[in-house]
Amino acid sequence: MNAPAQSWERREIGSFFHTFTDLPSLREAGPVVFARGEGAYVQDTAGRRYFEANSGLWNMTLGFSEARLAEVARRQYAALPGYHTFFGRNSGPTVELAERMLALAPVPMSRVFFTNSGSEANESVVKLLWLMWAGEGQPRRRKLITRRNAYHGATVMASSLTGKDYVGAFGLPGPEIVTLGCPHAWRCAAPGEDETAFVRRLAAELEATIRAEGPDTIAGMFAEPVMGAGGVIVPPAGYFAAIQPILRGHGIPLVADEVICGFGRTGELWGSLAVGLLPDIVVASKSMSAGYFPMGAVMLSPEIDRRVTAACEAWEEFPHGFTTGGHPVGCAISLEAIRIITEDGILENVRSVGARFQEGLRTLARHPLVGEARGIGLMGALEMVSDKETRAPCPGEWRIGERIARMAGERGMIIRPLGSSVVLAPPFISSAQQIDDLVGVLGAILDEIEAGRGRQAA
Amino acid sequence: MNAPAQSWERREIGSFFHTFTDLPSLREAGPVVFARGEGAYVQDTAGRRYFEANSGLWNMTLGFSEARLAEVARRQYAALPGYHTFFGRNSGPTVELAERMLALAPVPMSRVFFTNSGSEANESVVKLLWLMWAGEGQPRRRKLITRRNAYHGATVMASSLTGKDYVGAFGLPGPEIVTLGCPHAWRCAAPGEDETAFVRRLAAELEATIRAEGPDTIAGMFAEPVMGAGGVIVPPAGYFAAIQPILRGHGIPLVADEVICGFGRTGELWGSLAVGLLPDIVVASKSMSAGYFPMGAVMLSPEIDRRVTAACEAWEEFPHGFTTGGHPVGCAISLEAIRIITEDGILENVRSVGARFQEGLRTLARHPLVGEARGIGLMGALEMVSDKETRAPCPGEWRIGERIARMAGERGMIIRPLGSSVVLAPPFISSAQQIDDLVGVLGAILDEIEAGRGRQAA
Repeated sequence: MNAPAQSWERREIGSFFHTFTDLPSLREAGPVVFARGEGAYVQDTAGRRYFEANSGLWNMTLGFSEARLAEVARRQYAALPGYHTFFGRNSGPTVELAERMLALAPVPMSRVFFTNSGSEANESVVKLLWLMWAGEGQPRRRKLITRRNAYHGATVMASSLTGKDYVGAFGLPGPEIVTLGCPHAWRCAAPGEDETAFVRRLAAELEATIRAEGPDTIAGMFAEPVMGAGGVIVPPAGYFAAIQPILRGHGIPLVADEVICGFGRTGELWGSLAVGLLPDIVVASKSMSAGYFPMGAVMLSPEIDRRVTAACEAWEEFPHGFTTGGHPVGCAISLEAIRIITEDGILENVRSVGARFQEGLRTLARHPLVGEARGIGLMGALEMVSDKETRAPCPGEWRIGERIARMAGERGMIIRPLGSSVVLAPPFISSAQQIDDLVGVLGAILDEIEAGRGRQAA
Repeated sequence: MNAPAQSWERREIGSFFHTFTDLPSLREAGPVVFARGEGAYVQDTAGRRYFEANSGLWNMTLGFSEARLAEVARRQYAALPGYHTFFGRNSGPTVELAERMLALAPVPMSRVFFTNSGSEANESVVKLLWLMWAGEGQPRRRKLITRRNAYHGATVMASSLTGKDYVGAFGLPGPEIVTLGCPHAWRCAAPGEDETAFVRRLAAELEATIRAEGPDTIAGMFAEPVMGAGGVIVPPAGYFAAIQPILRGHGIPLVADEVICGFGRTGELWGSLAVGLLPDIVVASKSMSAGYFPMGAVMLSPEIDRRVTAACEAWEEFPHGFTTGGHPVGCAISLEAIRIITEDGILENVRSVGARFQEGLRTLARHPLVGEARGIGLMGALEMVSDKETRAPCPGEWRIGERIARMAGERGMIIRPLGSSVVLAPPFISSAQQIDDLVGVLGAILDEIEAGRGRQAA
C-alpha cells in the first residue's frame, strides 16, 4: 500500500480491526473507503466509481440512492426514533411489519419477532428449539444438523452452524453440531451418479446420520434454500422433497435460513418457494431492509408457536430478546423496501434480468477456465478449474478468485472472490445493460487470464 | 385485556411473539404500542404520555426527538445509505467513528471493529480470545469467567455469560462458563463483614476458582463495570483494584462490558473510569448511538491487537464479521451522539441531575418497604423487602416490582420491574424537575402500598 499519511486508507488501517479481509491482499492493495452511492454504483473517497455486482453483501438490493427508503426513515426518525419490544411494549411500525411478513410468508406462519441480524435470528432459533424440547421433557434434544459450506452467521453458535473450515480458527464447531455433506452435484456427486441418484444418496445420508446420532438427541436442522456464501449452491431437483419426510418422520423441525434468498434474490419472494422447502421456522434478514438498517426476523409456524409458547409458561416469559430488535425505524424501512420489491415491479425485474444473467453465466460456462457456472435469479457463481475435463481445482498459488476480483475492480466492478470461485449478486434494480456489461467484463477477464496462461505454456 | 378487534393491542397480540415479557402481566394488561416521542416522553397509540424513566432499555439517552441525530441520519442516507466492512472495504463515517472511539477510550486502545449489538460484540470477543489462545498454542484456554447477575446479551454464548436463573430455560450456561459470586455487598456480604473484608473474600474466591479450574483453561473474564440488568449493582470500593492483579498474574484478559455504562450513564464517560476497571478489551453499544441505530463496538488494547493479529496470520484473515456491522448511517449517528454527549454539556447534565437523582434515592431508602436504594449517575434501583431489619425479600406473590411499575405507568411514568426491585435509568437529557417528579411519584407509590399493608395488618 502506498498512500499519504492522512489519506482515508492510512486512517482506516490505523484504526480499524479488519473482519473477513484477506490480509495478504490488504497489505498489497490497501483498503478502499467509500463515500457515496447512486443507483447500483458506489464511489470511493478518491472519486472512483464501481458497479456493485454483489449488492454490498447481498443486501443493498435496491441500490444506494433509494429516496423512498430515505424518506420513510426521515419520517420515522421524526415520529418515534427508537423503542424496544420488551415487557409487552411495542411500536406501530413493528406491529405493521409483523403483520406484513405473516401475509407474505412462504407457508402459513403464526407469529414473528425481530432481531438485528441473521446471526441473532439463527441464535434465537437455537435457543427457542432448546427451550421447546426441554419444556416437552426432551432436554437431550440439543443437536443441530447443518451442511458443509452452509453459512449461518458469525456469533459463536451461528459460526458453529457454518460448515466452513475457517470456523476451526475458533475451535468450532461445538459438540452439538452434526454436519452433512454439501448438496452440490457438480462437485460432490460420485462419477456417473446422476442428480436423482445423488439426491437419493443425500437423503440416505440424512437418515443414517439421524439414526447414528439418535433421533431423540436432535433439536432441528438449518438450511439455506440456496447456499449463498458457500458459493451459490442450488440444491439438485427434488432435494428438499426427499429430505423433508425424513425430518418429519423423526419430529425434527426444519429452519429455512432465508437471510440471502428471502425477499426476491432467487426471483421468487422466498428461496423456499424456488426449491420446494417447507419450513417450520423462517429466518430473514438482509434484503428485508435493503441494507438500509440492521434487521433480522424469525417467523414461527402455528405448531412451533404453540409448542414454544407452552414451554414458556413454566418461565412465565420467553426470556430472550435484543434491545434494538424490531426498531421502529428499521421496521418502517423494511415495510417500504418490501412494498417496493413486491408492488413496484422489482420482483419482476429480478425475474427478467435474472434470466438474462443466468443466460450470460451459461455462456461463460463454455470458457476453458470455468468448471461450473451456476445460479438462480440474481445470484450466481463461476468456479474456475485448471483442467476442464478432470475438474481439477486451480492451484491455491494462482489466487484465481482474488485475481479475477482485482481485475474486475480495475474495470470498475465489485465482485466477490471465494477460493477458486467468484460470487455475483447484482442489485435487484440492475438493468439489462448493466447485466450484459458485467458478463462482458467477466468474459474479457477470463480471456486475458487464459491468454496469459497460453503464453506461459508456449 | 379488553380491546377492540382492530386495535393496535389486538394486532400486536395477533402477530408478535413476545420477548422478555411477563406473560401473566401481558394477559392481564395487554401490550402498549407507542407512536410518538418528544424529549424524555413517549406517547402511545391512544395518546397517553409517559416519562421514560428507563430511557427505553437504557439506550435512548438523548430522548425521543433529538433533531441533530435525525439530521445526520438524513444526510448519510442521502450520501451512502449502507455498506459493509469486509474484504478491506469501508465507509468514511466508519473510519471516523473508529478514530473517535480510540481517542475517547478509557485506557489506550489500538483498534476497533463494529457489530450490530452488545450481544454480537461479546460473542466476537469470545471468538477472538479463543482464536488468540489457540494461535499461541493454548487451545485449552476456552473457559470464560462471569459473575452471578451479570447480563451480557441474548445470543447463545452471551446468554451463557449471563448469570441469571432464566438462562436455565435454554439448558445454559454451557460447559465453558465459570460463574463467580455477585459483588453486591448489601445482599451478599456475610453478617458483620465490612466492604473491605467482602472485597478480600471476592478476590480470594477468584484466585481459588482460577486454581481449581486450572489457569491454563481460562480464556478471559467478562465484567460490567456496574451491573445493569442484574439490578444496578455498583461493586464495593476497591473491587476491581483487588481482582485485576489476580487476573494479570494468570494472564487472563479482562473484558469491560460497557454496553450500559459506556458513554456517560455513570456520570463518567466510561463505567471503567468510575470503578477503577482497567480493561484489555472494551465492548460498547447502547448509548453509543443513543438508541437511534443498532450499534456495537469492540476495542482492543495494543497488546491484545498484536496477539490476535499474529494468530490471524495462519488463517490469512480474521474470519469473522457482521454484514451491517459498522453501517455508515449507524456510525454517522454515533459520531453525532458522542459529540452531543461530550461537547454539548450532556455529560455535565448527567453529573448534576445524577447527583440529585442519587440524593432522591437515598431519601427513598428510608422508606419501610425499601431494603436498599443504590446506584450511580443516572442509573439506580430500589430493592423492596418485607422486613427492613432482616432484609427478608418480599414474597413472590406480592409481585412487588410489577405492581410498582404498573402503578407508575398509571401515573405516566415508565419504570422497569425486576423481581422485588425496580430499575431506573432516566435519559441523560432529564431536567432536575423531571428527576424530582420521578422520585416524588415513587415515594407516593411506596406510601400507598405501605398504607394498604398497614390496613391489611390492622
